[in-house]
Amino acid sequence: MPEKEKLYVGEQSLRFSQGVYITSAASVVGKKEGEGPLGTCFDMVCEDDKFGEDNWEQAESTLQKEALSLALGKAKLQPEDIRYLFAGDLLGQSIATSFGLIDFEIPLFGLYGACSTAGESMSLAAMCIGAGYAKTVAALTSSHFASAEKQFRFPLEYANQRPVSATWTVTGSGAFILSSRRSRLRITGITTGKIVDMGVKDSMNMGAAMAPAAANLIAQHLEDFKRAPEDYDRIITGDLGYVGQEILFDLLKKKKIDISNVHEDCGILIYDKEKQGTGSGGSGCGCSAVTLASHYLPMLEKGELKRILFIPTGALLSTVSFNEGQSVPGIAHGVVIEQEEC
Amino acid sequence: MPEKEKLYVGEQSLRFSQGVYITSAASVVGKKEGEGPLGTCFDMVCEDDKFGEDNWEQAESTLQKEALSLALGKAKLQPEDIRYLFAGDLLGQSIATSFGLIDFEIPLFGLYGACSTAGESMSLAAMCIGAGYAKTVAALTSSHFASAEKQFRFPLEYANQRPVSATWTVTGSGAFILSSRRSRLRITGITTGKIVDMGVKDSMNMGAAMAPAAANLIAQHLEDFKRAPEDYDRIITGDLGYVGQEILFDLLKKKKIDISNVHEDCGILIYDKEKQGTGSGGSGCGCSAVTLASHYLPMLEKGELKRILFIPTGALLSTVSFNEGQSVPGIAHGVVIEQEEC
Repeated sequence: MPEKEKLYVGEQSLRFSQGVYITSAASVVGKKEGEGPLGTCFDMVCEDDKFGEDNWEQAESTLQKEALSLALGKAKLQPEDIRYLFAGDLLGQSIATSFGLIDFEIPLFGLYGACSTAGESMSLAAMCIGAGYAKTVAALTSSHFASAEKQFRFPLEYANQRPVSATWTVTGSGAFILSSRRSRLRITGITTGKIVDMGVKDSMNMGAAMAPAAANLIAQHLEDFKRAPEDYDRIITGDLGYVGQEILFDLLKKKKIDISNVHEDCGILIYDKEKQGTGSGGSGCGCSAVTLASHYLPMLEKGELKRILFIPTGALLSTVSFNEGQSVPGIAHGVVIEQEEC
Repeated sequence: MPEKEKLYVGEQSLRFSQGVYITSAASVVGKKEGEGPLGTCFDMVCEDDKFGEDNWEQAESTLQKEALSLALGKAKLQPEDIRYLFAGDLLGQSIATSFGLIDFEIPLFGLYGACSTAGESMSLAAMCIGAGYAKTVAALTSSHFASAEKQFRFPLEYANQRPVSATWTVTGSGAFILSSRRSRLRITGITTGKIVDMGVKDSMNMGAAMAPAAANLIAQHLEDFKRAPEDYDRIITGDLGYVGQEILFDLLKKKKIDISNVHEDCGILIYDKEKQGTGSGGSGCGCSAVTLASHYLPMLEKGELKRILFIPTGALLSTVSFNEGQSVPGIAHGVVIEQEEC
């Protein structure tokens, strides 16, 4: 099978010679995200951040349920048409995912990549379709401001202050149906990230912790595919925020790579920094997922963009690792999405 | 590509027509596991359960590091020969994995499947090799008694009592190098599990919580591959323990399936119940991984077994979901390993 050899690209990438397509995508967000610059783009904005549930974790599970249901509906598919789910969230033992996806009764690969999970889940889902292991699969992730604050920082009731470098966890879930059936959105390659630890120890500055992983991934991706930043209409990081973006540019300049003309960050796009008081920007698995689903994929479908590199970024910490004095390593996973001429 | 179609088997399974092989496996365990019935089989038994580290979480990271290093050594490979790692553990935000694997600098897919993670990681690793996405990858998981007690139950210093239905988290890590290069151990198929929730709410009886998922997986696997229990020399669950094993037999009898002649459970095998006071048996991601690596794979290599179905089982809970009154759903992932005639 000499054809197989072509799949390897460089050190960390795969090129999908067989068609891997995004059939549909859906985004569900909370009230604050609905009031932000992308407010009109989301499929569903819920005024009640508890989504009718008793607690924040169940609310996050409901986010996932709604997002997947919407994506299935758009693709005119039933749960039984989906062979695998690739999903994860930020909570300890991924409970938003476990309890959110029970009712679909679809074989599940549970993932943890912190806020890079949107990239990880799409990468594995694309690998699955590209290999012919399934005709249709789904990738989804979520985060919720209140469940994340409770998990990583302080319960909301404490009303604690936060530094300007802190990001604001997005309440949202993005779901993607991937298939071998041709559509206008094609996944043509992936670059899978390594853990990068630059010794950042400030859990209130996750942009700084994740920027080195994003910089390494972008440099390796361009080398693997032998491309320049200009070969992309956008290079989109997940949730580096304002602080992380600056560090990213600096790190890449040292490698003689300038992405400033094509770079955007979902964490910067999703909120209005001045009006919404969101510090360095949005974060969380949901941040990049809902921004891709609601903002970038429609632009690709319309032909306003031809090729993007989507790079969700994750900070690999827990309160235990933080309290034990460990650093905050980062990871990033890249997915190339192109407009397919139909 | 008509050949691709053959990969699908039934509702939840894949058959690997191209060769997927286990090149090497390694197991590292703590003192108590070293004193158990499999004590002489493990590659490394550490007398110090902190593995020379400052805390339990770092100790668990060191377990993973040692297991992967040993597996690489046995395969005569360097870290740079491994294209992807598929790894996870039980701790919130999978910190044992994140901090254990930094130094290898290998692209990582972080996973969370509770104690089913050994099956999930081997499944994804096998899919990756089967598709030709890599020549060599590694799958690994870990658990540590003390980090798990701290995470899920009570700090050890409380010296709290536990019911006999409770399992004992194995301190151990198992690592597996998978490759397209022929060896005596071949992975011929996988069956991927759905989340199964039977409403069990007792976190001290995880065998009962996971048995329904194992039963569903075994029934579906046999149907997908059109096989009977007798087609396997062993059907091996991860960590159902004595309590879960009985429930598994009962549930399968209702489906008119009797596996009692070929069933074994890693949680039952790894400790001497009477002498070691380990309740219902061993548990944790590490339990099934080290038992497979140290006990079953050598039996397959020697030809004492020809074909096994290995099914790590996971209980999808966190202290948050438990304290909020949620049930404990289960999940199980099956991997078929056969002796390859060389």
